[in-house]
Amino acid sequence: MKVDGRPYRSIWLDGDGRTVVVIDQTRLPHSFATRRLATVADAANAIRTMVVRGAPLIGATAAYGVALALADDAGDASLEDAIALLAGTRPTAVNLRWALEDLGRRLRPLPAGERAAAAYRRAGEICDEDVAINRAIGENGLALVERAAEGRQGPVNVLTHCNAGWLAAVDWGTALAPLYMAHDKGIPVHVWVDETRPRNQGAALTAWELASHGVPHTVIVDNAGGHLMQRGMVDLCITGTDRTTAHGDVCNKIGTYLKALAAGDNGVPFYVALPHPTIDWSLADGAETPIEQRDEDEVLTITGRDAAGQETTVALTPAGSRAANYAFDVTPARLVTALITDRGVCEASEQGLKGLFPERAEAASS
Amino acid sequence: MKVDGRPYRSIWLDGDGRTVVVIDQTRLPHSFATRRLATVADAANAIRTMVVRGAPLIGATAAYGVALALADDAGDASLEDAIALLAGTRPTAVNLRWALEDLGRRLRPLPAGERAAAAYRRAGEICDEDVAINRAIGENGLALVERAAEGRQGPVNVLTHCNAGWLAAVDWGTALAPLYMAHDKGIPVHVWVDETRPRNQGAALTAWELASHGVPHTVIVDNAGGHLMQRGMVDLCITGTDRTTAHGDVCNKIGTYLKALAAGDNGVPFYVALPHPTIDWSLADGAETPIEQRDEDEVLTITGRDAAGQETTVALTPAGSRAANYAFDVTPARLVTALITDRGVCEASEQGLKGLFPERAEAASS
Repeated sequence: MKVDGRPYRSIWLDGDGRTVVVIDQTRLPHSFATRRLATVADAANAIRTMVVRGAPLIGATAAYGVALALADDAGDASLEDAIALLAGTRPTAVNLRWALEDLGRRLRPLPAGERAAAAYRRAGEICDEDVAINRAIGENGLALVERAAEGRQGPVNVLTHCNAGWLAAVDWGTALAPLYMAHDKGIPVHVWVDETRPRNQGAALTAWELASHGVPHTVIVDNAGGHLMQRGMVDLCITGTDRTTAHGDVCNKIGTYLKALAAGDNGVPFYVALPHPTIDWSLADGAETPIEQRDEDEVLTITGRDAAGQETTVALTPAGSRAANYAFDVTPARLVTALITDRGVCEASEQGLKGLFPERAEAASS
Repeated sequence: MKVDGRPYRSIWLDGDGRTVVVIDQTRLPHSFATRRLATVADAANAIRTMVVRGAPLIGATAAYGVALALADDAGDASLEDAIALLAGTRPTAVNLRWALEDLGRRLRPLPAGERAAAAYRRAGEICDEDVAINRAIGENGLALVERAAEGRQGPVNVLTHCNAGWLAAVDWGTALAPLYMAHDKGIPVHVWVDETRPRNQGAALTAWELASHGVPHTVIVDNAGGHLMQRGMVDLCITGTDRTTAHGDVCNKIGTYLKALAAGDNGVPFYVALPHPTIDWSLADGAETPIEQRDEDEVLTITGRDAAGQETTVALTPAGSRAANYAFDVTPARLVTALITDRGVCEASEQGLKGLFPERAEAASS
């Protein structure tokens, strides 16, 4: 999508054919800066510190991380060490695991001399596949936005949580892809952007993406969505997901469940957009999803731009108070109106997912 | 309640019998400072700039403000000017209007020479009455906490939203009163404190109150409560309310509704604590409650303590993004397990409230 009128992806290979370049998402929305990843340690660090975040982008970065390791040393130990290092960065991310398994399976049989080139090639393919997947999600979700826009005067009001835009993917995004497509097609869309504490991916990233591309939006605190739905100010909700179970339960950024409850209570459609690799066919019940706990400092402090334009971190709580920081929650399938996948829109249920992905459901159950 | 082991109220008369002292709540949680109010202008300013906040404390401060004016000049003009000045500080605060009407009615008939003493006496009574009301709420709510503690090993885990503690009142608080009483009685209590964006009254004030009194607590982002309830980590919720309708709908800080939905979805009791003066007998349906919209800067920025210990305001969003800031939402009575009032605990319904307050319900309907 566009930044100052120029099209970008969130990750790309540098002109040297070796170094990987990403947008430093920890600097947004206050500065637009790129970061060069020259080693597997750089890649692991970028994932761990959330320079890159979002399930698909984490997967792509991990794939390039393996390539960077092999460019240094293509031996078996180097490959396994790289996979282990990268796998430990974000335990909940299913794309991370998927990308590393994919790379490992393809690279292990190859002679050492061919591994680095194969890894770079496959990482590039993973990026291109992700863009294709997200474009398909956008096209499938667009129909739902168009339906909501029918016969209406004002814009379609859409609420989203966290960032499931192009910064979370390689391009387009998942939840935001249908909105970018609607906007580009001239359908008036207005987005309520949950700020998404503790890391404020909504206020920082979603708002920045939408502003950069020119999509009308309003930032709200995470507490506000229920009230907006009660007063008829939200036509539909769309969020992304980090992991969807085979029965349609959705694990996504902490707080998603609360918005889904409010949508259900007020008859507002609640859609979840997902690339099919984030479906965890091995898991039926979302209540069994392991939930990452992150550092309490993300809750106790916040970073923003001070009056002098400097990024400054400030403490929000008394010195003696501690915090808990659960990164995700699980929205049960019963609260999800439909899943928007790259293969089509389906009911959030075992039957719905099986209908769209019969071969995968079968492979998982065999 | 206690600060560093020493008992405090949120407002008191100085040893000189004339000056009023309050805790400067704009400095919390980072510094504990008191502010001396020597004139009616000081009192008005303290209310306007939120040095004092919380409906009961605003009423008490206004009452003392009238006393301060009369200590300077007990004439009719001075009395009316003081009432007008104070009434204009927070135009929507119900307790403010109530306290000023009460003072005006009592003082106007008195000879000038008796007014100041009468005003101080009445202001002190208003404080004591508030303490008695909150103590009664605490005692009534304590039974619910005791019941939750029965036969349990660990502490009773209670989730609260915003600040409905002693800082919002004169002492005890509303939602927190039962928890202070349980803690003082040796019942182990642990409080999940919603930070309560945008103004962070939870992270700043509730956490500070609980830390100062020694009550175990953990700060969480507003997004987290649903997940905690899904995983069985919350035994009950207690919040305050700014206005309760005659049918038991509860208007409280934005985001309360979302927590009530999660409590309902997970079978967690959701209690609302309220002093009876906040019941609006003239209103049945909470959906008709006017919702205050506040400045968008409360969403776009946040204030905390920087590394140098200075209070600093930082911007959270891209320069081009706007925000909406609804201050309250309405939780329908069907989601409220019970109302904890100073007269007892009742169902959140017309019948429940009528049962506890038959004379008021009747007065309102006549």
